[in-house]
Amino acid sequence: MPLESEIIDRLKKRDRTDPRVRIGIGDDAAVIETEGSADLVVCCDLLVEGVHFKPEWTPPKLLGRKSLAVSLSDVAAMGGTPRFATTSIALPQWCSSEYVDQFFDGLFAMAQSSGVSIIGGDTSSSRDSLFIDVTVIGECARGQAVGRRGAKSGDRIFVSGSLGGSALGLLLFEQGFRLSDGKENPLRIPASRHLTPEPKLALGREIGCLGLASSMIDISDGLSTDLWHILDESNVGARIKAESIPIDQSTISIAQDRGIDAVELALSSGEEYELLFTVGPANIERVQQLAQSIGESVTEIGFVVDSGGFQLERDNSVSAVEPGGYQHVI
Amino acid sequence: MPLESEIIDRLKKRDRTDPRVRIGIGDDAAVIETEGSADLVVCCDLLVEGVHFKPEWTPPKLLGRKSLAVSLSDVAAMGGTPRFATTSIALPQWCSSEYVDQFFDGLFAMAQSSGVSIIGGDTSSSRDSLFIDVTVIGECARGQAVGRRGAKSGDRIFVSGSLGGSALGLLLFEQGFRLSDGKENPLRIPASRHLTPEPKLALGREIGCLGLASSMIDISDGLSTDLWHILDESNVGARIKAESIPIDQSTISIAQDRGIDAVELALSSGEEYELLFTVGPANIERVQQLAQSIGESVTEIGFVVDSGGFQLERDNSVSAVEPGGYQHVI
Repeated sequence: MPLESEIIDRLKKRDRTDPRVRIGIGDDAAVIETEGSADLVVCCDLLVEGVHFKPEWTPPKLLGRKSLAVSLSDVAAMGGTPRFATTSIALPQWCSSEYVDQFFDGLFAMAQSSGVSIIGGDTSSSRDSLFIDVTVIGECARGQAVGRRGAKSGDRIFVSGSLGGSALGLLLFEQGFRLSDGKENPLRIPASRHLTPEPKLALGREIGCLGLASSMIDISDGLSTDLWHILDESNVGARIKAESIPIDQSTISIAQDRGIDAVELALSSGEEYELLFTVGPANIERVQQLAQSIGESVTEIGFVVDSGGFQLERDNSVSAVEPGGYQHVI
Repeated sequence: MPLESEIIDRLKKRDRTDPRVRIGIGDDAAVIETEGSADLVVCCDLLVEGVHFKPEWTPPKLLGRKSLAVSLSDVAAMGGTPRFATTSIALPQWCSSEYVDQFFDGLFAMAQSSGVSIIGGDTSSSRDSLFIDVTVIGECARGQAVGRRGAKSGDRIFVSGSLGGSALGLLLFEQGFRLSDGKENPLRIPASRHLTPEPKLALGREIGCLGLASSMIDISDGLSTDLWHILDESNVGARIKAESIPIDQSTISIAQDRGIDAVELALSSGEEYELLFTVGPANIERVQQLAQSIGESVTEIGFVVDSGGFQLERDNSVSAVEPGGYQHVI
């Protein structure tokens, strides 16, 4: 089976025929020009049993919620506002009516809280795995979508929230932790982080509206892989300071107890759904003011350089970071 | 596992929040009002290995083609024109790079011939089955989308093309026939019908533009089930003449050789992707002229009545037809 990145590279080479397609295959979402004042932003995300989730530690309501959340995050990463969604779901025999109802309870609750209307979809049976694909259609102001190509040398690199928790949560589930293991259990923090991602909708939308970022992506494959996407598409390099990468205290302490390097965890942790973006020097203060005004944290973790790939400064030395997130390959 | 129809019925009861949604869950496609002169038409269709296709008789190029064709047909059934598509695909280990390339060869060829741009998608691995979900975004003139609700007593019922071939083709594959069994083999006609459906894009689009149909649907689940969708949504009944149902000569003769009733085959055969539509008396002649002008056949198979469900006239008797197409249930 080919690597996901190989498939995308090959598809990008195929022709686009419609001149209204501003951004096509290979970004977080596609962007289409319309007759009106807004461009359409379109993306879809798969959740496949055994690949993206395991039912034994994923309550159906949280699965439904996450199925939509991950696509909403892609729209946010383009600087857009999600509006409509379709849901395709292939159900194996073990999915009861109650399971399906709870799945859609979670999905519709997420839709309502994010102002999105579920407009359709498809359902099927499946012989084996549960398979979910959610497509989201959003909008952004004409020509204002933020792609991956605009990072320039001298731009500062920002990330929202904190990193590492999602991968740690997944590890804990793999080691046997369950949400039912006590409400006061500190392991619930990374576990919830993995199961209940919060797409940064207001932050993404406002960055898009105000034109504050030169490039943006959401962290779905891990900081190292996703930063590489920006570097590749923008043809630049990056210098990141390890001690600047935001990692929350519970992640640091749980990782430490298990002998896990928290920085490496934060670099490779996918499914964070934080925003990673580059900002020209003139906009740095405005980004910080924006984040404060909407109650989101953003952290400057480094800067863009002409070339040299992804360089990590740590303990007074600099090392090269290869794309280290999750690649779908068997 | 719940029936597909039960899931859809429950989802239809959930709230729609956005007033721009003209048609939501439960039709062939959703319809959204825009600022411009066109409404958006959005639909998605799953193809799941072992449920919708088997790799042993489906060449990857034809699978890619069909994956898009079935969603294009939904847009045609709304009277719309397809414009953009996204493709989500979860690949099991047996899918080689060549297989994936051929799949996309077929999909992109179908896109090109139908004027559709592939703008994005998602890829994943799959532990077991191959899953495909294609979302198509199209357009139709503002307020002109043709749903399932407008059939009125006295309208005539039309179907495009001919029916029965797709189910017969599937049966032949299940009995061991393969496309490699000789180019002159007459069984290739229904077999190709099953693997290479031709969505009626021009016919659907023009019916929509000209406002000729009071309701329309594409035949994906079978004439009996799909006509019932119109009857349920429009709150009417239908009288169909069995001898009027168009069935091509090769289907009749191959079915006869196997002791299969061709009319029953035509009633239950899904995946035909012909258009089934109702037409007010004033528009009958225009529909026939339109079909002739674009080189499509349309056949009047009956008429709409106030109530009484789906009544079939055959051999001087009338029987009730229950929804008999394919329901996704395990």
